[in-house]
Amino acid sequence: MALLTDLYQVTMAYGYWRAGRHRAPAAAELLFRRCPFGGAFALGAGLAEALRFLRAFRFSAADIAYLRSVLPSTTEDAFFEYLCTVDASEVTVSSVPEGSVVFSRVPLLQVKGPLLVVQLLETTLLCLVSYASLVATNAARFRLLAGPATKLMEMGLRRAQGPDGGLSASKYSYIGGFDCTSNVLAGKLYGIPVQGTVAHSFIMSFTSLAEVEPRVLAPAAGGEPVDLPSLAESWLLRVCEVLQVSPGKVNRGELAAFVSYALSFPRNFQGLLDTYCVMRSGLPNFCAVALALNELGYRAIGVRLDSGDLAQQSKEIRRVFRACGARFQVPWFETISIAVSNDISERSLEDFIREGSEIDVLGIGTNLVTCPLQPSLGCVYKLVKVNDSPCLKLTEDEEKMTIPGVKRVYRLYDAAGHPFMDLMALEEEPSPSAGQELTVHVLGQNGEARKVKAATVEDLHRTYFRDGQVCAALPSLPQVRSHAQAALGRLSPAHRRLREPEPYPV
Amino acid sequence: MALLTDLYQVTMAYGYWRAGRHRAPAAAELLFRRCPFGGAFALGAGLAEALRFLRAFRFSAADIAYLRSVLPSTTEDAFFEYLCTVDASEVTVSSVPEGSVVFSRVPLLQVKGPLLVVQLLETTLLCLVSYASLVATNAARFRLLAGPATKLMEMGLRRAQGPDGGLSASKYSYIGGFDCTSNVLAGKLYGIPVQGTVAHSFIMSFTSLAEVEPRVLAPAAGGEPVDLPSLAESWLLRVCEVLQVSPGKVNRGELAAFVSYALSFPRNFQGLLDTYCVMRSGLPNFCAVALALNELGYRAIGVRLDSGDLAQQSKEIRRVFRACGARFQVPWFETISIAVSNDISERSLEDFIREGSEIDVLGIGTNLVTCPLQPSLGCVYKLVKVNDSPCLKLTEDEEKMTIPGVKRVYRLYDAAGHPFMDLMALEEEPSPSAGQELTVHVLGQNGEARKVKAATVEDLHRTYFRDGQVCAALPSLPQVRSHAQAALGRLSPAHRRLREPEPYPV
Repeated sequence: MALLTDLYQVTMAYGYWRAGRHRAPAAAELLFRRCPFGGAFALGAGLAEALRFLRAFRFSAADIAYLRSVLPSTTEDAFFEYLCTVDASEVTVSSVPEGSVVFSRVPLLQVKGPLLVVQLLETTLLCLVSYASLVATNAARFRLLAGPATKLMEMGLRRAQGPDGGLSASKYSYIGGFDCTSNVLAGKLYGIPVQGTVAHSFIMSFTSLAEVEPRVLAPAAGGEPVDLPSLAESWLLRVCEVLQVSPGKVNRGELAAFVSYALSFPRNFQGLLDTYCVMRSGLPNFCAVALALNELGYRAIGVRLDSGDLAQQSKEIRRVFRACGARFQVPWFETISIAVSNDISERSLEDFIREGSEIDVLGIGTNLVTCPLQPSLGCVYKLVKVNDSPCLKLTEDEEKMTIPGVKRVYRLYDAAGHPFMDLMALEEEPSPSAGQELTVHVLGQNGEARKVKAATVEDLHRTYFRDGQVCAALPSLPQVRSHAQAALGRLSPAHRRLREPEPYPV
Repeated sequence: MALLTDLYQVTMAYGYWRAGRHRAPAAAELLFRRCPFGGAFALGAGLAEALRFLRAFRFSAADIAYLRSVLPSTTEDAFFEYLCTVDASEVTVSSVPEGSVVFSRVPLLQVKGPLLVVQLLETTLLCLVSYASLVATNAARFRLLAGPATKLMEMGLRRAQGPDGGLSASKYSYIGGFDCTSNVLAGKLYGIPVQGTVAHSFIMSFTSLAEVEPRVLAPAAGGEPVDLPSLAESWLLRVCEVLQVSPGKVNRGELAAFVSYALSFPRNFQGLLDTYCVMRSGLPNFCAVALALNELGYRAIGVRLDSGDLAQQSKEIRRVFRACGARFQVPWFETISIAVSNDISERSLEDFIREGSEIDVLGIGTNLVTCPLQPSLGCVYKLVKVNDSPCLKLTEDEEKMTIPGVKRVYRLYDAAGHPFMDLMALEEEPSPSAGQELTVHVLGQNGEARKVKAATVEDLHRTYFRDGQVCAALPSLPQVRSHAQAALGRLSPAHRRLREPEPYPV
């Protein structure tokens, strides 16, 4: 993966090498300049993958041969020989723990080592951290909006930037607070819970009950197998009475598909309601099959809607579940889970909340995975020190200025436990302590000094990589997820707000 | 990669298997419902990767073990045994050639085979084709806007959805009409030309000319090596006179970086001008080094700008190149290539064209790779036939309706060689021929009939996969790129327009 970089990193490496500067001690920081999606926070993610990349960082003979073919013919042989020996064994990386809440302009990652190596790592580290952090943040926003009770399912594989984009999306959505994914490979690789039911194509592949085969199901408690299509058909008539729909208009292909699915998964029956008409076909068919299963001692687990006014329909469906539950004395019927999907965005979630809904599960794909509100975090990786000189870029564009020198980052918490400021100090400055009065300069406020006192001070960065090895224990994915949720929970409401939040001072 | 799918594909597969329908002959189509970015066309891409996936499609023992752990415990053993035997050997795939211009609602890919397999392929095929086609289309739009003369460079690796997203972006941008990429691995894997120069970090790592080492460069024609820093410094004084800037204010760290880079790449010297101030430092430094190189018989190749008003600056820079070329009698100086980058979008390209500019090379990253105007193509994959029954989804949402039956797709060209309509006919209908009067129904126009006559008729689809093997020759990447450019060139201007185009009838 060492070649997964921009060519200019290699041409610069040659420049450093020829100038004898390749081993100059250097330090770089990876940060983003603005919080994504108009919020005041982000989640830092991608660290574990970055560490895996660092451990394996090395140019193969084939890589070197390719580079020889690409660099100008004047490039000296000795440079390529040197490149063969390059790895990350002299690199030290410190970082916020994966899943931490982070703010703009505060380094997520600090990289120290020989100038040439620090430079060569830039693009790959950006690639591994940027999208990971972006989609984790996006997921966290969905979680904050949906509240803790609603189940969130990531289903964006088909909308991602290829296979690997899809896997990253599943993994980092989980960190951001999603509960499960539809992506089976992500489940296998990362241990994320996977979920899935049925698509319209399955429903459409049936045209009549006569196609259902096998037809019989034994009751859960054992006993004589029963012909499920007939049982469902008889329940359909009773359900149609309650719903006041005409049994003749209910699509029997759909009923056949539901029955067939129930025969395959009697303990996990779910229905996709909107292949034809939700209220006049999908819902009566589902209730009929669920009640037939109930008669045999099985409980259906849920329905899914993939079109139309999702909030409104969820309320109508819940009403029908209640009516059926009461009419047929099946109390659990009203608690059947209602899942919805179809281009769900932050905006639609806000609408659901405003209108009220009976939605239990949200399946989110495109708007989670592609982050259309801001499809790139715009992370940058800046040299802050070479030899003993701090690096400063003074450009016409104030936002693009860098803050020179190697920093330590402290998070200051107030008495209520909310973080209220991230403090950057040069490495050589003394650490602040709790209760101490600190004089700080808030970025973007013309360098005016301000005095603050923190109830608690947290040293944000830990050293994760040293001497070519990962030197800190890496938490499991569920631990990272819990860390993220806890950190989000500590944010003050003003900073957690998803739109027009108070800017977090740094 | 067989597990790179949504779980519901597997649960449905079980449903089909239990119902004894898994071997029912089925057909599915992959299409998109609306053209992306508000245009009237897209480029179809991803075919070669889809074929590679099909050839290898098979569940490993570990995959099966994982699926056993995920599916309900009632799932029959025999199903997993059957899954072990499943591959794509009975699948036939036809498609438009990769890089073809395609329109909404016309199938890009048709898949025929046993129902269970056709269903299992859905998510992965969508994942491989959707983003590929989207980014190729996005690239094609940039190419159409920029015109054929401007060089387009893809540099979005750090903004992509992880490593694989970055590689896909490089590959499919090239198909869409880009000339090169910064992504070295994409160059190695796909043979795409790679380009790159230098970043701000390189410039910032120098503080004075004293740091430059080694210092001497032999003239191109041979002879005594010359001290390049001194030569550049002396040229700087002369350049400052022409530019009327104060030599004292020119940043000598930047000069040192340029000289050092020129020593490394005397035949490929390029300067990044905006680390400090373009007009008062970057440009004079570049001209000084380029003129020093010229004295030794080398030609500088270009400059790059990464901030500020790019069009305006490009014109000022060209003026300076002309002035220096005239003043120092170096005629080629005025043709030095000017490259720009920094969040370039379709909108900024339109601005450049309106204002006029002297830009030769555009480096495009975020707005190419993440497709922020529409980050997902929204492809769908629909069953159109099972056994001998055409499948039709009748839903409340008219746009989500499918057109049943297996189709052939013909493209009709007018006498000027522009395609004016794509015609879908059922497989069993006779093929249309050139000059024949055809009665057609245009989609979305209430089924009204219309008569058309085509000067040329093209059968759009070819069979690419049969009996588990790729059965058609696959063109090389440059051939795919040429095919795409030729197809775009044949589009009538009304359909090629990027905004508010005439809808293309289907």
